[in-house]
Amino acid sequence: MSSSAPQQRPPGKVLNINNINSSVKAAKYAVRGEIAIKSDEYRDILARGQKDKLPFDSVISANIGNPQQLDQKPITFFRQVASLLENPLLLEHEDVLVNSLDYKPDVIARAKKLLADVQSVGAYSQSQGAPIVRESVARFIEERDGYPSDPKDIFLSAGASGGVSTLLNVICADSSSGVLVPIPQYPLYTATLSLLNAQCVPYYLEEAQGWSTNLKEIHAAHEKASANGTDVRAIVIINPGNPTGSTLTAEDVRGVLEFAAEKGLVILADEVYQTNVFEGEFLSFKRVLRDLQKENPEKFKHVELASLHSISKGMVGECGHRGGYFELVGFDDAVVQEIYKFVSIQLCPPVIGQAIVEMMVNPPREGEPSFELYKTEHVGIYQGLLKRAKALHEAFKKMEGVDCQSPTGSMYLFPTISLPPKAIEQAKSEGRTPDEFYALRMLDATGVCTVPGSGFGQRPGEYHFRTTFLAPGTDWVGRIVSFHEKFMDEFR
Amino acid sequence: MSSSAPQQRPPGKVLNINNINSSVKAAKYAVRGEIAIKSDEYRDILARGQKDKLPFDSVISANIGNPQQLDQKPITFFRQVASLLENPLLLEHEDVLVNSLDYKPDVIARAKKLLADVQSVGAYSQSQGAPIVRESVARFIEERDGYPSDPKDIFLSAGASGGVSTLLNVICADSSSGVLVPIPQYPLYTATLSLLNAQCVPYYLEEAQGWSTNLKEIHAAHEKASANGTDVRAIVIINPGNPTGSTLTAEDVRGVLEFAAEKGLVILADEVYQTNVFEGEFLSFKRVLRDLQKENPEKFKHVELASLHSISKGMVGECGHRGGYFELVGFDDAVVQEIYKFVSIQLCPPVIGQAIVEMMVNPPREGEPSFELYKTEHVGIYQGLLKRAKALHEAFKKMEGVDCQSPTGSMYLFPTISLPPKAIEQAKSEGRTPDEFYALRMLDATGVCTVPGSGFGQRPGEYHFRTTFLAPGTDWVGRIVSFHEKFMDEFR
Repeated sequence: MSSSAPQQRPPGKVLNINNINSSVKAAKYAVRGEIAIKSDEYRDILARGQKDKLPFDSVISANIGNPQQLDQKPITFFRQVASLLENPLLLEHEDVLVNSLDYKPDVIARAKKLLADVQSVGAYSQSQGAPIVRESVARFIEERDGYPSDPKDIFLSAGASGGVSTLLNVICADSSSGVLVPIPQYPLYTATLSLLNAQCVPYYLEEAQGWSTNLKEIHAAHEKASANGTDVRAIVIINPGNPTGSTLTAEDVRGVLEFAAEKGLVILADEVYQTNVFEGEFLSFKRVLRDLQKENPEKFKHVELASLHSISKGMVGECGHRGGYFELVGFDDAVVQEIYKFVSIQLCPPVIGQAIVEMMVNPPREGEPSFELYKTEHVGIYQGLLKRAKALHEAFKKMEGVDCQSPTGSMYLFPTISLPPKAIEQAKSEGRTPDEFYALRMLDATGVCTVPGSGFGQRPGEYHFRTTFLAPGTDWVGRIVSFHEKFMDEFR
Repeated sequence: MSSSAPQQRPPGKVLNINNINSSVKAAKYAVRGEIAIKSDEYRDILARGQKDKLPFDSVISANIGNPQQLDQKPITFFRQVASLLENPLLLEHEDVLVNSLDYKPDVIARAKKLLADVQSVGAYSQSQGAPIVRESVARFIEERDGYPSDPKDIFLSAGASGGVSTLLNVICADSSSGVLVPIPQYPLYTATLSLLNAQCVPYYLEEAQGWSTNLKEIHAAHEKASANGTDVRAIVIINPGNPTGSTLTAEDVRGVLEFAAEKGLVILADEVYQTNVFEGEFLSFKRVLRDLQKENPEKFKHVELASLHSISKGMVGECGHRGGYFELVGFDDAVVQEIYKFVSIQLCPPVIGQAIVEMMVNPPREGEPSFELYKTEHVGIYQGLLKRAKALHEAFKKMEGVDCQSPTGSMYLFPTISLPPKAIEQAKSEGRTPDEFYALRMLDATGVCTVPGSGFGQRPGEYHFRTTFLAPGTDWVGRIVSFHEKFMDEFR
């Protein structure tokens, strides 16, 4: 058929699995993939009271960092303010709020201040985010890092996920554009690069060194991709790590910045777990970059850094509100304008989520009426996470063929499992990767939903799974231990 | 340089305006473009008290349908429930809520029901949206259309914009994929097609027939694009129209469905203004499709339709909450699975926005405690919009060289302006389109921010501007009238 003749399509549906966007088909996102979908079906079965159909009486969603689906209560200050933003008519009854509902004066004051800026949480804000929120974010970054930050460089986003999508959309020009992505990684990165039909340039993290960055690996990955004609434009770092649960040292952060400066790479610093640090100290890429720029202005003057944060993690855990931000450092003005235009097409991030960003970065201070309760809640959540992380880690240490790095950050553990050859054979005969087979068996036997390591990437021949340590109690940990024993016996 | 040698980039920034994603650069979104940005600068000048610098004392944002930024108050029932969802601790004080804060029992009951399903508005919901919300949406569609609807076919989204982006991402396979888009159109469609590097296939609406669809135009556009090798896969219809303010007749809707069935086109029905109807009756594409399928099952059995709705418009106006949904009709299961995976990468739409979707489609019913107030507010907003639409239309009728269709739906008017040749010359000398020149002059003289017709598309040689009729009062209408007079005098 000549290309100028009208195309004929066979009768039937316009769209089928073979003619839709192949980049969408190619994208993989195991965090909400087959095993997660199956766990929802199990939950439905239990909800219908059909407990005799399953060998467990509850489903544990350890596949996703979704704290408020499990045990975590929201921070009272945030939600009291949010309730006033949703219903400003309540502000006409301050006496009732204070005397009968335990709203403190700083709650009321914060709600009034936010409303004065956004007018209504039902109105679109500026596409980049409400000025008051960007102002507070900039002050927070200044206090954290000891270096200036400008509200005009802050972009609010729908979770950090929205920010990652925006940045990769602008950075990747075509299928020759590449982005260095750690392996294992949170699959948002590979999935978004698939959607953009751009190149994921994987570099392995060093499991034996607490999942730290290894510059040799990064260098080799960069060189190989460049040699193949890929225009490597950016490097993603997740610190603290997801799924690895690690926190990078100052040396690691400096090393990555030096490499990026030498090779000309934009740094995408995913710092959403910056308050989930159990060992060591969180050092932001922005702070270390500014230190390096003082030491060696010439070398680091051009560096472009985007740092992402979110209300979904930390002690906040407000995933459902879809709030986050990114700060742009060193970007060309004309590029910033294009980023602005890109986000404006979707109008603005959710305004109540923006308000929670403001409260996360600007919580009650010592001496303010809501401070004591805020501090108690914050510390309580932190201690609870730490305790569960350690308990889970202890359990993994006792399991045969399981090896797990000590938890130093984020909300995940990512143990290696040495699977018996018979299990690997069985997996292959079922058309599955061995870690998928293991995680599926775990779900079927225990109701505990995890994500197989292949969903994040791992070295060939290695097998992992990722589990959050958010679920309350220790019963579910016991279920994993006993499943594992039986699994190893079955395939021994 | 051989393609296998590592690429060298010149020193300096990695990203510049010439090497970023050209599809982002190509995208245009005038609703928040140059004129809107300039209006924000004017607003800042006035906020700083520098009134002597400008010939007006307020900026009127008539460029965007953002009701709560202007006069519109939120519906009390929605916001009372939302306040309880944000702070469920309030539910421990039902007596205070009822006796001191005027919360009715149905407000409390609704909040409990929603919380029982979503657990916390701070938790991620299912990627497709919370089950209770999808259930209510399906019941709403059944009541509206008189045909069944299934919650499994409903996808919640971040406003309708998020839904449009999802659908176009899946539908467009590559740069040969084309989508029929009405001209004038809401620029989300052309912008998203630009981002996807897919083909916009424009078809003109008939201004003289109240901006209705003209099958001859659609047919010709389809034929021309197909002859050029474009694989035309879908047709976008905005009903009631944006920016046109029109409502399609039953004949128009049937005609489009017949054409889509004959040619094999997915129908994207943007029905976000379905309650903003001032003349005639809103008929959903789903309902008319089901009617046609009864009349002629063979012809219409394969038709694929996606219908979008939103909480941002209508009498709800909750833009900042970013809530919306689409219903899929007739899509292949495997394609639906890919849509699910695509939305799961961004985890879920804002949960409080989902809750407002639930309340929009399932508001208080007659006899329920909150019904009277709900009805009063709803009718009040509707009447206010109608009154302003008519006042603005009357003003346009009196203006020299301005011609405007009678408002029958949505929240916009889109008058034609006959610009004098001298004004057109002057615009050209400033490197602007004549309508941009006119809208910019209007902003500079009056503080009223509108969007030039070129931002939506118009026939060559025609000039329009889009204005909302949301702003309170009539002073700003007077400002436009007097500006126009002076403008015409200046360039006569």
